[in-house]
Amino acid sequence: MINTIEKQTGAAFRLRKGDRLKVIDPQGEQVSDIVLFNAEDLREKLSSGKTLDFEETILITKGHHLWSNRSRKMMEILEDTNGRNDFLLAPCSPETFQIMYKNPEYHPSCFENLHTNLSKYGIAPDDIPTAFNIFMNVQFSPDGTLSVDPPLSKAGDYMLLEAKMDLIVGLTACSAEQSNNYAFKPIQYEIISGE
Amino acid sequence: MINTIEKQTGAAFRLRKGDRLKVIDPQGEQVSDIVLFNAEDLREKLSSGKTLDFEETILITKGHHLWSNRSRKMMEILEDTNGRNDFLLAPCSPETFQIMYKNPEYHPSCFENLHTNLSKYGIAPDDIPTAFNIFMNVQFSPDGTLSVDPPLSKAGDYMLLEAKMDLIVGLTACSAEQSNNYAFKPIQYEIISGE
Repeated sequence: MINTIEKQTGAAFRLRKGDRLKVIDPQGEQVSDIVLFNAEDLREKLSSGKTLDFEETILITKGHHLWSNRSRKMMEILEDTNGRNDFLLAPCSPETFQIMYKNPEYHPSCFENLHTNLSKYGIAPDDIPTAFNIFMNVQFSPDGTLSVDPPLSKAGDYMLLEAKMDLIVGLTACSAEQSNNYAFKPIQYEIISGE
Repeated sequence: MINTIEKQTGAAFRLRKGDRLKVIDPQGEQVSDIVLFNAEDLREKLSSGKTLDFEETILITKGHHLWSNRSRKMMEILEDTNGRNDFLLAPCSPETFQIMYKNPEYHPSCFENLHTNLSKYGIAPDDIPTAFNIFMNVQFSPDGTLSVDPPLSKAGDYMLLEAKMDLIVGLTACSAEQSNNYAFKPIQYEIISGE
């Protein structure tokens, strides 16, 4: 069954070890932030620093694992039809829009969509780690300068990941104008049981 | 007063808003990992993802701030006589040596030296975020590949930081062979009161 995360919203769900998760960009040029928690002990969670360290690259894609703060493999990326993702930048939050976009009004954000959906599992806003930003196109220059460019993903591009432990997953359809070329779109996902 | 962190050890201490912290590499080619917590609420802590996002660069140095997971400024870098630091890689941990160095024996690590020194403030191992790695020389290629090269710091190089809130600070003299050109050395620090 394919589930749809409507534009500027999110979802949270459980995966069992061995389950596969397919994250689909149905219209193209959309970003999905994902965060992971060990379902048996929520203090173990996704770590960008551990993942970049063990994989020895900024650009995480097919063949790499997503690692936890306890140096354990949480998911393996089995397929990635687009190939460009980001693991440098924190999920967009209310302050992203206030400080970077100079927008003082209320604005939906991945951070809010993650913690509100994950709250049913006892996960608080302060528990949200830096997300793995599927299809986010963050370019870096030799001098370190970062720029957020339109995603390279085309309609139907997807990433297939396999759970290496029982997981609580948070997933969004990104809310930030710059991240998805100024057009808010949905994200779809499918859970493929490992049993 | 200048304090010395002996090789492969760490320290933890409080800073008040307005205090300045000078982190000195007395012999050159040494790395110091720093983590920060809001002294009034330990759930607010240093965030690599928020810092890289707000500063829009991988290479954090003089003029930049270190930001928290709540999108607030924790410290400002006032001076940086070397200029090359890392905020991509997690502190070396026991698993770093087991998995990356293929060394099954006990090995001191920044992660252990951070959480053992911070435990007196009620900070647990799982609370340790990705550290800001002062003088760590992590090079990145256009294809994203990361390499840990010898630090560029010379004897006497230092970083001067100012606390923007009351802080609990963890600080190390790094324990990883590759990070400090295979010679373990001390780190020194001085707290300059803001009053």
